[in-house]
Amino acid sequence: MSEKLWEKGYKVNEEVEKFTVGDDYVMDMKIIEYDIKASIVHSRMLHKIGLLSAEEQKKIEEALSELLNLVKEGKFQIKPEEEDCHTAIENFLVKKLGEIGKKIHTARSRNDQVLTALRLMYKEELKEIENFIRELQKSLERFIEKFGDVKFPGYTHTRKAMPTDFATWAGALKDALEDDLKLLKTAYEIVDQSPLGTGAGYGVPIDIDREFTAKELGFSRVQWNPIYTQNSRGKFEYLILHTLSQISYDLNRFASDIIFFSLPEIGYLKLPKELCTGSSIMPHKINPDPLELVRAYHHAIVSKMLMTVTLPSNLIFGYHRDFQLLKKPMIEAFEISKNIVRIMKIIFDHLEVDKERSESSITEEVLATHKVYELVKQGVPFRDAYRMVAEKYGREKD
Amino acid sequence: MSEKLWEKGYKVNEEVEKFTVGDDYVMDMKIIEYDIKASIVHSRMLHKIGLLSAEEQKKIEEALSELLNLVKEGKFQIKPEEEDCHTAIENFLVKKLGEIGKKIHTARSRNDQVLTALRLMYKEELKEIENFIRELQKSLERFIEKFGDVKFPGYTHTRKAMPTDFATWAGALKDALEDDLKLLKTAYEIVDQSPLGTGAGYGVPIDIDREFTAKELGFSRVQWNPIYTQNSRGKFEYLILHTLSQISYDLNRFASDIIFFSLPEIGYLKLPKELCTGSSIMPHKINPDPLELVRAYHHAIVSKMLMTVTLPSNLIFGYHRDFQLLKKPMIEAFEISKNIVRIMKIIFDHLEVDKERSESSITEEVLATHKVYELVKQGVPFRDAYRMVAEKYGREKD
Amino acid sequence: MSEKLWEKGYKVNEEVEKFTVGDDYVMDMKIIEYDIKASIVHSRMLHKIGLLSAEEQKKIEEALSELLNLVKEGKFQIKPEEEDCHTAIENFLVKKLGEIGKKIHTARSRNDQVLTALRLMYKEELKEIENFIRELQKSLERFIEKFGDVKFPGYTHTRKAMPTDFATWAGALKDALEDDLKLLKTAYEIVDQSPLGTGAGYGVPIDIDREFTAKELGFSRVQWNPIYTQNSRGKFEYLILHTLSQISYDLNRFASDIIFFSLPEIGYLKLPKELCTGSSIMPHKINPDPLELVRAYHHAIVSKMLMTVTLPSNLIFGYHRDFQLLKKPMIEAFEISKNIVRIMKIIFDHLEVDKERSESSITEEVLATHKVYELVKQGVPFRDAYRMVAEKYGREKD
Amino acid sequence: MSEKLWEKGYKVNEEVEKFTVGDDYVMDMKIIEYDIKASIVHSRMLHKIGLLSAEEQKKIEEALSELLNLVKEGKFQIKPEEEDCHTAIENFLVKKLGEIGKKIHTARSRNDQVLTALRLMYKEELKEIENFIRELQKSLERFIEKFGDVKFPGYTHTRKAMPTDFATWAGALKDALEDDLKLLKTAYEIVDQSPLGTGAGYGVPIDIDREFTAKELGFSRVQWNPIYTQNSRGKFEYLILHTLSQISYDLNRFASDIIFFSLPEIGYLKLPKELCTGSSIMPHKINPDPLELVRAYHHAIVSKMLMTVTLPSNLIFGYHRDFQLLKKPMIEAFEISKNIVRIMKIIFDHLEVDKERSESSITEEVLATHKVYELVKQGVPFRDAYRMVAEKYGREKD
Repeated sequence: MSEKLWEKGYKVNEEVEKFTVGDDYVMDMKIIEYDIKASIVHSRMLHKIGLLSAEEQKKIEEALSELLNLVKEGKFQIKPEEEDCHTAIENFLVKKLGEIGKKIHTARSRNDQVLTALRLMYKEELKEIENFIRELQKSLERFIEKFGDVKFPGYTHTRKAMPTDFATWAGALKDALEDDLKLLKTAYEIVDQSPLGTGAGYGVPIDIDREFTAKELGFSRVQWNPIYTQNSRGKFEYLILHTLSQISYDLNRFASDIIFFSLPEIGYLKLPKELCTGSSIMPHKINPDPLELVRAYHHAIVSKMLMTVTLPSNLIFGYHRDFQLLKKPMIEAFEISKNIVRIMKIIFDHLEVDKERSESSITEEVLATHKVYELVKQGVPFRDAYRMVAEKYGREKD
Repeated sequence: MSEKLWEKGYKVNEEVEKFTVGDDYVMDMKIIEYDIKASIVHSRMLHKIGLLSAEEQKKIEEALSELLNLVKEGKFQIKPEEEDCHTAIENFLVKKLGEIGKKIHTARSRNDQVLTALRLMYKEELKEIENFIRELQKSLERFIEKFGDVKFPGYTHTRKAMPTDFATWAGALKDALEDDLKLLKTAYEIVDQSPLGTGAGYGVPIDIDREFTAKELGFSRVQWNPIYTQNSRGKFEYLILHTLSQISYDLNRFASDIIFFSLPEIGYLKLPKELCTGSSIMPHKINPDPLELVRAYHHAIVSKMLMTVTLPSNLIFGYHRDFQLLKKPMIEAFEISKNIVRIMKIIFDHLEVDKERSESSITEEVLATHKVYELVKQGVPFRDAYRMVAEKYGREKD
Repeated sequence: MSEKLWEKGYKVNEEVEKFTVGDDYVMDMKIIEYDIKASIVHSRMLHKIGLLSAEEQKKIEEALSELLNLVKEGKFQIKPEEEDCHTAIENFLVKKLGEIGKKIHTARSRNDQVLTALRLMYKEELKEIENFIRELQKSLERFIEKFGDVKFPGYTHTRKAMPTDFATWAGALKDALEDDLKLLKTAYEIVDQSPLGTGAGYGVPIDIDREFTAKELGFSRVQWNPIYTQNSRGKFEYLILHTLSQISYDLNRFASDIIFFSLPEIGYLKLPKELCTGSSIMPHKINPDPLELVRAYHHAIVSKMLMTVTLPSNLIFGYHRDFQLLKKPMIEAFEISKNIVRIMKIIFDHLEVDKERSESSITEEVLATHKVYELVKQGVPFRDAYRMVAEKYGREKD
Repeated sequence: MSEKLWEKGYKVNEEVEKFTVGDDYVMDMKIIEYDIKASIVHSRMLHKIGLLSAEEQKKIEEALSELLNLVKEGKFQIKPEEEDCHTAIENFLVKKLGEIGKKIHTARSRNDQVLTALRLMYKEELKEIENFIRELQKSLERFIEKFGDVKFPGYTHTRKAMPTDFATWAGALKDALEDDLKLLKTAYEIVDQSPLGTGAGYGVPIDIDREFTAKELGFSRVQWNPIYTQNSRGKFEYLILHTLSQISYDLNRFASDIIFFSLPEIGYLKLPKELCTGSSIMPHKINPDPLELVRAYHHAIVSKMLMTVTLPSNLIFGYHRDFQLLKKPMIEAFEISKNIVRIMKIIFDHLEVDKERSESSITEEVLATHKVYELVKQGVPFRDAYRMVAEKYGREKD
């Protein structure tokens, strides 16, 4: 029978239990691998400080490695009645190793255990997103090589303003992503602190080697203060989702640009129909659906981010069950972020510029500012030159 | 082979296609029943206006009824390559009925089709939540009957203020829910407009009978303006989620109260341990987890609501693929709302008042205001009476 | 010397005091008129229940009427050291009437006093916004009369879809506003409950006549439960701001439409230059600034709304000083809402349709769906007809 | 007569003009000093590239210095009809210097001008907040010196969990602020790019020396891409407000802690009454108002942040008038942030620990986990030890 880690011999109301577990046991399939790895390292530390014999540690590590394989092969499922991956792992060990398995939870709490697994996941996901961004930047470089010198009208107030070119436009995204990489780096560095050993937020009443586990798990340092470690729940999630939303912000703006530039009435860009989908009623439609979804997912990330900052606010220190709800938005936001960066790369790989349309759209009035500066170069004060040119272009034909 | 409704003979980039479909085919399993029912009514209307023969309509209705049963029995799945339930339904009909099946999409677009299915779902969910709220109100009444006359200290600024009683406290939630029922009613009435027949937002170029389908589907009226019908996407979702968040707002506040009142240091309320869960490291802990989750889910609903209002903003009229992302937050928010109302009912069914603790906590200073009013009744101006009493209680003992 | 209502003979840290007062004394100049009116009614009730003599009540009412005139003439300012309008009013009375003035705060707290003043303001503002909306609807009707029958291409996915006309387009806003009026009505009805007499959330220990004050102040009913009355702080503000954001949602979408339709490249609408402003560097620019600001203010309202729902969440019952911060977003949001509705009215009063441009833009492919339906009328199944027409329009020229 | 920079000889609708200006001319008094300084540097660059003679530049610099003094002495006001500080500055120069004044706007647009002024302000504000944080950290160190070794019960789920001490508690805020300083540094570095010379987002058609102005203004580098520079509007504001909200997040949590710990029923902390305010009706109340406001202002910052990210989303590239609304939330958020950090410093300067109350609250069950570990040290497997101890503490008395 599957037992909960806090089992004490009474039965919780069934509907309440179902509610408290929620979809946590499903979410936890996304972090169980990290939890197993951290458990292996934890068992090594327990051996190092004398709480597990070499024999016991070996058996635990072997069993956990076996479990890791089962998970990777899709042969292991967390049961709803187990609540979470932490319980599932301990139950697996107890079933397999008996008494020895009951020792794995020594010197840790589910609180620091889940923080450890999550941070390992966060770090990996942030690295992956960094890689996807670099690939998108390369795609932008190739786009610039092909089309960079084509001029087209820049806009302000959604109206033609002055000439620009596609090197500047695509370069703007490249530069924005460069700043985003800095934000990713900062988020990574702040998350890169080992929470393992902080227990339920007040340490464990036993001497443990936190530097050992931090190092083995690849954390750059230990987060020593256990209360801050708990307070980080929410804070770090918020930091990460803000960073992801800075990326989605840039993609939202550029998706909007491409949807606009590829409007038949504008026509500076051509979106190959392989990147479009159709309408169920209007046979002529070729729609920029993937760009619309890139645009829309920005709002999904912002809304998830919002939850991470409002949910823990007004609460006192220490763990609250509320924090369980922070897992899902993180898992979903990483998935979304990887998808939209990747899709934008594919789009820039295929996007085409209509040189003729772009250049012929630099109509006379778009050069008005240039005319002003010709007068300025002849010595006319700027404001007078401006008004002289405005005489001609700033009014309607009347 | 499954065909898309807009199939035109070229292949969309595979990764792009996977991205645009997303988990829509999963989400659509939640609305396919409504779509089938609406399709049956639509076929009757097509017959009524002469576009389907009696024979054709009968076959379509039979096939759709069969499909409905398959869905209910869990024997039908939408395939990812079908994208959505609309395509799955048409494909089912074409496979089963050949030429006749190809006629079902006459005089409609996926745009009005999905709006119709969603609104039917929204109406049913709103009704269900209304029922759950009434049950919670009844539970509150029973709680008041049992414990209503027990007095305890009311708080302001999280500090004891003046005496109150549990009838007033639980009655406050009952009254708040009464106002929420008014909001639910308004939301329901606004959503209760039939969108069927607005096509892709610009009507269909054929005479159809919109009042017939509206009536058969149980809508109280037709939403005549097709552009407003499209613009409602997002607007109505936002309205509904705001309404749900008004409910979760009340539950959030009362969950916070119960967590506070059942603090061992306060002790006005006793939370039976059948409603609590434990800690994996601290054997003495009995934690109010379900209440913490009720409290936290409020933030989940608010964050989902936020998405419904920011996603469509700054966009011009007409359908955008962005709107597809509005399905998931709705489905999840209904689920959450039903859960938290239901759980609060169970909690009030079991919650107990510690009469001794509550009444003995009305310490002398909590009655300071009463002392002021004794002086007022004797003719002392309020402000002077206040200062006389403050002399005694408003200062620390020094 | 100005005294605080809670003065007890010790000095608060100066910087702390400045911080806690904030700009409340400025904000309160927006509600002091309502507070004075409510104070007059309150004094009448105190007389009715025998706590003020006829003579005393008369003096108080005269003094308050004098104060009201001073306020209206801009001759009265709340001093920062008075903190708020409630203190300023009581100080004014005490200075003028001595002992009698000290009786005005009998049977009330600043908590129910501010709730009363705020709700009176909310009700008046909601009425005013309702009137502005009706004016905008009339302007839309005039626009439809002038330009309603001009056809232009409807869009989906920001691409031409099917023909529509300006009656349908402007009618969509009219209908949306009609639904908004329903929301305004519901918000008004829920806010229309008298909080006066609930004291600090736990009533006053004296028999008062709440129905009398409610009636005199024009409230349709008494909000009997004092705890719910306090819990309404935040909840009602949230309800109102949601309602205002539903209005701004509609205006945001239509401002986006007009900015788009009046793009020189599109040209269906002409925005008279009297409604535009220019650029400091580009002499040819005529920009749709007021529409951009209408669009943008929607986000200001949504952000203010967010604050009203997150600030009180996770807090236990009873007043918290946190609620003070809810005043400013309300005052600002009403101001914004009135402005944007009014500006949109002016815009529709002046907006012009380019009939030639609109109608000539209904190019052949916009009629593709109509062609499908011609085949449908000849008996071709819809899906086959669709594919036949798609053959022609759905592909690029290749 | 005051002229607008884009004046072209027609009159804008008065109500529209009032609306578009809004309170911008008030807001701009906060940035005019930065704009004057940037204008001086700009004039030097114009001289350097030969567009102003030495004489002209000298006169402009003198006039601008005079204006700077007027502003600092509170003797200069931007008029509503001037719209903004940029116009006011140019008008001042033209009035004073005639023709020469009309040259100041050469090679710049209001778009890059406002970006420059804002970023100079942002940088200064960020530095100031950094200093305030360091002062708060020092106050925390002093608090730890005084009270750090006092033990008290740590909480999870708002219930006593395990012992902790005030060094760990206050240290948690110190460490959190240390991470916030890293975020401030990153935000500062990203904002520290000179936008001057990007014109209206498409450069200026003349050779200018952007590195010269960047260096003179103290920017660490030039933001070369003019489109990215425009796209930064909103993005950088969002980044900064997120950073400020990370700080307010920490303060919100600790304000919540102090309000809770200083509850008479808990009593670990004592809040000197000099930091409290009272009630207008209950003479005994001493309320933690400044802490409640610190807690509440977090939500104000989060709501302002939300606006910066949603307002520009879904918009195409280039300046939109929408961005004007981003000024106010920034100015307000900086003010709030400085206030709350400063107030928390004052609070920690005065906060006292009740040693007796704190230590006596570490009741037997708080040591349950310690008892488990005594058994663990004797060789009992953790899970068995847990259950043995739970036997005793985990059940209610029955």
